Amino acid sequence: MQHYPSQLLERAVEEFAKLPGIGTKTAMRLVLHLLRQDVKAVEAFGNSVIRLRQEVKFCRICHNISDTETCDICANPRRDHSVICVVENIQDVMAIENTQQYRGTYHILGGVISPMDGIGPSDLQIQSLVERVREGEVAEVILALSPTMEGDTTNFYIYRKLAESGVKVSVIARGVAQNDELQYTDEVTLGRSIVNRTLFNINM
Amino acid sequence: MQHYPSQLLERAVEEFAKLPGIGTKTAMRLVLHLLRQDVKAVEAFGNSVIRLRQEVKFCRICHNISDTETCDICANPRRDHSVICVVENIQDVMAIENTQQYRGTYHILGGVISPMDGIGPSDLQIQSLVERVREGEVAEVILALSPTMEGDTTNFYIYRKLAESGVKVSVIARGVAQNDELQYTDEVTLGRSIVNRTLFNINM
Repeated sequence: MQHYPSQLLERAVEEFAKLPGIGTKTAMRLVLHLLRQDVKAVEAFGNSVIRLRQEVKFCRICHNISDTETCDICANPRRDHSVICVVENIQDVMAIENTQQYRGTYHILGGVISPMDGIGPSDLQIQSLVERVREGEVAEVILALSPTMEGDTTNFYIYRKLAESGVKVSVIARGVAQNDELQYTDEVTLGRSIVNRTLFNINM
Repeated sequence: MQHYPSQLLERAVEEFAKLPGIGTKTAMRLVLHLLRQDVKAVEAFGNSVIRLRQEVKFCRICHNISDTETCDICANPRRDHSVICVVENIQDVMAIENTQQYRGTYHILGGVISPMDGIGPSDLQIQSLVERVREGEVAEVILALSPTMEGDTTNFYIYRKLAESGVKVSVIARGVAQNDELQYTDEVTLGRSIVNRTLFNINM
């Protein structure tokens, strides 16, 4: 057992050590760093997470994190509301937004189906996606989940759920990534990239 | 520039990313973890660091972190107040306390002399150590600084400052560490460990 010179210090270190990937030594280092900052800076740090947790909302349409009932993307009339891109989490939305290649809307599942982790379809926002497609004027659903067994399982599950609606369902392209070296690309990816080859285009 | 779906989220991520060794991606991961916890748990997290920064004290004698004006060690009559162990920081005190081999008191310098980092003697708690030795009934000062050039420089500086007081000044033993393999031990350490060999003792 560690001997802490201060209970306040001990409590702060314990709180940091609860975070994923942060051990006691790292927690101590972070807390001692904060101790060297201005009181105002530490209050800003602590209050930023408290306020986030207390005040943040989840968009009633796409379930993305939002400061308002409807997120900026769902509320934006200049986005194409006839296209829904289905992703696992918030980081995926941010990554796709950063590409500036997509002008439609999103639907955040909150994960993928993973029996090993005890995550079934009812733990995800799949039913609300089906309802969105049923109610709204949706022309296409783009599945942008991880290219893993769990992602593929979830893709298939959603595909079947949406089948009766008659909506167009697409999947993001899989193939060799930009700057990948072919000799180090796995066989499945390389094989598929040949089967699913596209016509050469000078603007590619 | 990242597109954040929420300003509250962005602010919390920015605050975490200010911590040493925490990049934006890790900050995002930590913040999203907190977002999944109870409001009460997140309030406990945030308030623990705010309270620490607002309320923590530094011991008026040894400068260790403390919940009171005088730390638990300096206030403990069963500790040997005639011995002062000089260390760089709070973690060093905790490490030595964990050995349960030391019953004296401490003096936390707050670092070592390092011209490269712009840290001179006046940035450290050296003058207060000299005064402690001058005023109190101190029999021995143990220098327990890092075995580096900066640590050695600081040792020498303190040694000269304490010379006129006539107090006994010692340095913690240097040599091969427990379970070190000799063939991988650096030459300086190995050479010194032979020169400074001690008589064999069955209780070692």
